[in-house]
Amino acid sequence: MALIVQKFGGTSVGDVARIKNVAERVVATRRAGHDVVVCVSAMSGETNALVALSDAINEGGPASPREYDVLVSTGEQKTIALLAMAIEGLGESARSFTGGQMGMRTDSAHTRARIERIETEALRGALDAGEICVIAGFQGVDPDGHITTLGRGGSDTSAVAMACALGAEVCEIYTDVDGVYTADPRLVPFAQRLDRIAFEEMLELASVGAKVLQIRSVKFAMRYGLPLHVRSSFVEDEGTWVVPEEDVMERLVVSGVTCTNNEAKIHVRNVPDQPGIAARLFTPLSDAGIVVDMIIQNLSRDGSTDVTFTVPRTDYSRALELAHQASREMGCDDVGGDEDIAKVSVVGLGMKDHAGVATRMFAVLAHEGINIQMISTSEIKVSVAIEEKYAELAVRTLHAAFIEGDAAQD
Amino acid sequence: MALIVQKFGGTSVGDVARIKNVAERVVATRRAGHDVVVCVSAMSGETNALVALSDAINEGGPASPREYDVLVSTGEQKTIALLAMAIEGLGESARSFTGGQMGMRTDSAHTRARIERIETEALRGALDAGEICVIAGFQGVDPDGHITTLGRGGSDTSAVAMACALGAEVCEIYTDVDGVYTADPRLVPFAQRLDRIAFEEMLELASVGAKVLQIRSVKFAMRYGLPLHVRSSFVEDEGTWVVPEEDVMERLVVSGVTCTNNEAKIHVRNVPDQPGIAARLFTPLSDAGIVVDMIIQNLSRDGSTDVTFTVPRTDYSRALELAHQASREMGCDDVGGDEDIAKVSVVGLGMKDHAGVATRMFAVLAHEGINIQMISTSEIKVSVAIEEKYAELAVRTLHAAFIEGDAAQD
Repeated sequence: MALIVQKFGGTSVGDVARIKNVAERVVATRRAGHDVVVCVSAMSGETNALVALSDAINEGGPASPREYDVLVSTGEQKTIALLAMAIEGLGESARSFTGGQMGMRTDSAHTRARIERIETEALRGALDAGEICVIAGFQGVDPDGHITTLGRGGSDTSAVAMACALGAEVCEIYTDVDGVYTADPRLVPFAQRLDRIAFEEMLELASVGAKVLQIRSVKFAMRYGLPLHVRSSFVEDEGTWVVPEEDVMERLVVSGVTCTNNEAKIHVRNVPDQPGIAARLFTPLSDAGIVVDMIIQNLSRDGSTDVTFTVPRTDYSRALELAHQASREMGCDDVGGDEDIAKVSVVGLGMKDHAGVATRMFAVLAHEGINIQMISTSEIKVSVAIEEKYAELAVRTLHAAFIEGDAAQD
Repeated sequence: MALIVQKFGGTSVGDVARIKNVAERVVATRRAGHDVVVCVSAMSGETNALVALSDAINEGGPASPREYDVLVSTGEQKTIALLAMAIEGLGESARSFTGGQMGMRTDSAHTRARIERIETEALRGALDAGEICVIAGFQGVDPDGHITTLGRGGSDTSAVAMACALGAEVCEIYTDVDGVYTADPRLVPFAQRLDRIAFEEMLELASVGAKVLQIRSVKFAMRYGLPLHVRSSFVEDEGTWVVPEEDVMERLVVSGVTCTNNEAKIHVRNVPDQPGIAARLFTPLSDAGIVVDMIIQNLSRDGSTDVTFTVPRTDYSRALELAHQASREMGCDDVGGDEDIAKVSVVGLGMKDHAGVATRMFAVLAHEGINIQMISTSEIKVSVAIEEKYAELAVRTLHAAFIEGDAAQD
């Protein structure tokens, strides 16, 4: 008998019929002899409806973050009650837990709280009493008993953190896709579902656009060595296991090819090459909450240098303005940019001991006539910034080169 | 500076515009120099929508009472967050409190919990910090931290109990009528709004059909001597104060005439007149949760007696069946009933020292040709059961006789 944590997102609990469907899966797991903790999101549409109410009350101005959390946490509270009822309707005993009741202790950063610790006594007591525990994702309480939320998408994190705290055997993430793919199947017809993938690879994939799992939840699982199982809430088949590196038997050199659109590039030329330049350029951006992704600084030439970086496209005009301002203060003002950038990445554990992945990637792109504007690398990832219109072509070609051909994998 | 508790029902917070309207009234009270605790219900329609979801999940079968409370308590939680936001939008600081956060400790009788004690530290701390406290009506927590509800209409009780615990100067009950009337204005055109009424009178009026206040909340207020002020959420005028008897200056002999329809009468004839008969007849009814109201047992004649009683009309057929069964077991089976009964009552503190109210009531009804089927009396109330079709006529005639004429009041 194992302890299994199951997490169902908003689409999976979107109406009464789907909640009943989830109840059946939970009960089937229980009747297979396991202890079950099930973590749910708000019914799809519910959170948006609550946010709309808040917007109407606040007339578009900022809502009190404390009260916002009190409001939106009702969404998950509805779902846990309904799912617990549905499970009891199938003859198993169940008990719902709000964030406070499940001991999910967070800091006081309303709307984006961080988990500080989890007190598992209540859940353990219920599990020992033979009850299925239905827990609300996304919510917790701070040290003063105020309701907090972990930020949108935090339900994955709730489920994984609770699974770690309870020492569960696995955390199953049910979603509307049936696993993690080597590329977005809408772009690449030959994309393959991965049976297993390492945490490190999943982190790189998640950070470059694979939306199956929240990065925070993967980090939690990696730290505790907790296996995740990403699978479909609509079919019974196994999905993709996300596991420690040593549990991935067959290491692929490249396990995924991904793409993020909606990037923009900004360059600042002829910056005086002195210590502190980077700080003066990037501090105003981070103060403004703009996430800078790739950064490249060229070698100095004649006492000055060029800096190029990427930002989300929605932040482009603000970032450009701030870059102008900073460079004027530094006595130069040669700033420009490009709004039509995509970032294409290849990710794979096997890169660690297979040299030449980057070289091969550049050759494949060159063969298609795609110009590489920026490059960044990590131990298991190579990313390039290219003109956006070539993004799909790049992904398909790289997928064909690294994954589809058998020869590519040796 | 006084401490004032204000309670707004579901209609008063039925949409965003009305919540903002409530926020303005609350802020006006605060700016008049008072500390304010405001207790709210779920937005009108919200509780019904949640109950409909529960019914759909449970397919008409009984819901888990524990989970039912988790579900329906989200209704008030939404309102407190929205109202706190609206108050902050007007420039005053506010904080919302769920049942648990406000220290509303109840027993574990889900869906109809009783308040055991109120821990006021959290609210006092917020009030001392200059915050307006926005509390959720209708909900509490049991000793194990489970969410409980006080039963429908429990928001009045939440507000009044909290006002008593905090030693508030007054609990204002905002509703869609502007006070307590001497009779239902829809029935009696000359019905008058009362400026003041004693707790005892309000209790009798509430128990015989005046739906302005929950009986439980009046009992709480009476026990603690807390003045209630029933007033309209749509106009500024004073409404009706419900106060200790000694604070009612001008005692009316009769302060109200009320009527409950939807009663039914059952008689059991020729019951052997032995000790224990009443218990054998009424125990099955109370076991079935049927509330028996008036009971009359005639003097014994030839060793047997007749018993007549009233029940809510919705329970009539079940009650009739149980009465048949009980009387068969007692060796007699002369049972019958009448589904078309109304109970008309006159209520007034002044009856205590004015003899003859009952006599006069009977005479007024006789003069209209209305036959009295049953009579029951308390210190400040006389009720009669009559044929339902005469109910309105009886109320109007009694109101004219006891209240409209000056002469009636001496």
